[in-house]
Amino acid sequence: MKYSKLFGKTIKADPKDEVSTNAKLLIRAGFIRKEVAGVYNYLPLGLRVLNKISNIVRDEMNRADGQEMFMSSLQNKANWEKTGRWNTFDALFKVKSRFETEYGLGPTHEEVLVPLAKQCIASYKDLPFALYQIQTKFRDEERAKSGILRGREFLMKDLYSFHTDEEDFEKYYERMKLAYKNVFERCGLHAIMTEASGGAFSKFSHEYQVLTPAGEDTIFYCEGKNCGFAQNKEIAGVKAGDSCHKCLESGHNETIKEGKTIEVGNIFPLKTRFSKMFDVVYKAKDGTEQLVVMGCYGIGISRLMGAIVEVHHDDKGIVWPKALAPYQVHIVILGNQDEIRKQGEELYKKLQDEHIDVLYDNREDAGTGEKLADVDLIGIPVRLVVSIKNLTQSPGVAGQNIEWKTRNDAKTELLSFSEVMQKLKR
Amino acid sequence: MKYSKLFGKTIKADPKDEVSTNAKLLIRAGFIRKEVAGVYNYLPLGLRVLNKISNIVRDEMNRADGQEMFMSSLQNKANWEKTGRWNTFDALFKVKSRFETEYGLGPTHEEVLVPLAKQCIASYKDLPFALYQIQTKFRDEERAKSGILRGREFLMKDLYSFHTDEEDFEKYYERMKLAYKNVFERCGLHAIMTEASGGAFSKFSHEYQVLTPAGEDTIFYCEGKNCGFAQNKEIAGVKAGDSCHKCLESGHNETIKEGKTIEVGNIFPLKTRFSKMFDVVYKAKDGTEQLVVMGCYGIGISRLMGAIVEVHHDDKGIVWPKALAPYQVHIVILGNQDEIRKQGEELYKKLQDEHIDVLYDNREDAGTGEKLADVDLIGIPVRLVVSIKNLTQSPGVAGQNIEWKTRNDAKTELLSFSEVMQKLKR
Repeated sequence: MKYSKLFGKTIKADPKDEVSTNAKLLIRAGFIRKEVAGVYNYLPLGLRVLNKISNIVRDEMNRADGQEMFMSSLQNKANWEKTGRWNTFDALFKVKSRFETEYGLGPTHEEVLVPLAKQCIASYKDLPFALYQIQTKFRDEERAKSGILRGREFLMKDLYSFHTDEEDFEKYYERMKLAYKNVFERCGLHAIMTEASGGAFSKFSHEYQVLTPAGEDTIFYCEGKNCGFAQNKEIAGVKAGDSCHKCLESGHNETIKEGKTIEVGNIFPLKTRFSKMFDVVYKAKDGTEQLVVMGCYGIGISRLMGAIVEVHHDDKGIVWPKALAPYQVHIVILGNQDEIRKQGEELYKKLQDEHIDVLYDNREDAGTGEKLADVDLIGIPVRLVVSIKNLTQSPGVAGQNIEWKTRNDAKTELLSFSEVMQKLKR
Repeated sequence: MKYSKLFGKTIKADPKDEVSTNAKLLIRAGFIRKEVAGVYNYLPLGLRVLNKISNIVRDEMNRADGQEMFMSSLQNKANWEKTGRWNTFDALFKVKSRFETEYGLGPTHEEVLVPLAKQCIASYKDLPFALYQIQTKFRDEERAKSGILRGREFLMKDLYSFHTDEEDFEKYYERMKLAYKNVFERCGLHAIMTEASGGAFSKFSHEYQVLTPAGEDTIFYCEGKNCGFAQNKEIAGVKAGDSCHKCLESGHNETIKEGKTIEVGNIFPLKTRFSKMFDVVYKAKDGTEQLVVMGCYGIGISRLMGAIVEVHHDDKGIVWPKALAPYQVHIVILGNQDEIRKQGEELYKKLQDEHIDVLYDNREDAGTGEKLADVDLIGIPVRLVVSIKNLTQSPGVAGQNIEWKTRNDAKTELLSFSEVMQKLKR
């Protein structure tokens, strides 16, 4: 993509109506624009990142035998009344029709999927199965000042699993833990699996929490090797400075730490809560009728994008992990001489021929400082500079005239095209 | 995918609350389920078809230099008031927040995109550009009895183009005509480009209309070779039985026909209607300030899926065009003998190894009649049957024991695996 053609340019000053780092940087770098408080539009750069995250999530959910579907946002009021949540789910937007009753505007999908699944479950042979979707959710949140960390409209993956019994559910829950571990690792995030409340229906649930000062949650956690103890403050039986009991048991002494975190995912045993409400039963092997056991598993796709920015940035801009970057390479030409433009164009074409995603800053009317500042702000992993200085600097070494720099390293080096390709493929 | 594991099974009887053919067949075949009137959930089979259509549309929009983005559904009321449509766009759902003003729930996106584009347009150098998204739209339609042809929630591609002047717009409009022609051809639909009203602001627009008795529109059209005359009844200056003036001019005599149609897309000159409202101007080469000229271009992705079913079905079920079918091959095993199951499993694996998308009906508890009826109902292009009869029928011809049948042909033939592969690759 040529930067001159790309819709959504960088902005120098911080937007006045944003307080969060993620919104400030993503708006300035041309990834998102605010529609109203808590609601954002994703420009081409932003959508590319959302799609990268979605595809990683999709891949891991498919590996865990999740079947993708796409449920409606306008939801049947009757089912929300059945679960008793029509009047108790505070963040539920209600939508009036001129011709029908009201709808719920999907903040979650149990009220849609459980009655739907019921139609497809008769015998134990129909179980287990897992269904998911990646879809816009709507929640009338009170606070909407965290950019895309907490919005009134956001992109989410929600998966629901259906089982004959607790034992089968537990096995799947462990599979999902592994899938979630993979998702966050592939996204370049260190997410701490944290014990949290299971609500009124289950002893526990697990949240995936990312440490950052921008977080709205607080967790207590242990950094002891192979320990993994972490609890949400809301249920924690420990405090900062305590010795970690789990480590003590294995003869180590570790101290509990406290941290601000962003919740990027959660996994939740639903037990028979919803199957009871909708009478979702199956005929067991012994001929008896049994309630289906359920679990649900969420990942905030757009929130994860915000969390990445909160964790991976510096004072110059965003530092995208390779797997999520909108493009792999950002070419900049410095100077408008014919030779420079020709070399830039050639490099752009050659990288495209090698199926590398490239953003090519070919602007004529932008200066060196502006171009290099934009590269740092946008945060693509590799910067390649074509300039007269680089073309003439090392005349003795044939072809080594492309300046390579990675976003998170100050060092630059002059490379030939084949050396660039070698480094990109690493 | 093994049919025994697939979520969303076939249903024998027509659903009682549906009158349209597309909804009846898609529900019976396990592609969709109704949530409330005019709102549907897409099961795994249904989502696969939606994705195939979306990807064809995406490919053609990208070729036409469209940049994909993703705009919000919750929209700023102030912008709807600015265009005067807050109280005049009848089908606009309005959503109240506990904390803010109301939102519009996106039935279209001019009110979002035009103010957004304004931020990125300063000079003639910033033009032209084209932006699109594939996204859920919401419209409070009065009639909601046409299945996925006319819903209150539906998937749509909307592209908006921005130009310096009419001439540049006209050039792009012609490019879009070609892109639309490609989209519908690739989807296996004969869509007639039909002149329609341009509203208060433009002399004309064009709709893409598909002939079917299920259509809610009426067009007058000429089938003369190289003619292409077609007008929506709402603006037509002709009637059925008239001679086609356009053909007469080139010395042919053709008769105007009348037909019921489904509109699957439209392209629309917006001229300066919205740029005036939002004061979207650019600095021209001569230094003067000029209004940006716009066009918009829609394709109903889910409606297109419904139109395909209305056009491509018979009394047994759906007949998917190859490019949109959820799977390319439907394997059925008849009988539960070990030999049959082994052969079925092997064939399934071998086709997957060749990267063919296969649905494998491995059910133990379904009879021959039920399995073959389900194949016809679901409508996958190629059926392969593994049975004792086929395994023993032609013992003299080594390996030719797979029964091949296409959905739209009654003929069956026995083929070897390599012959199957040859035919699939054609």
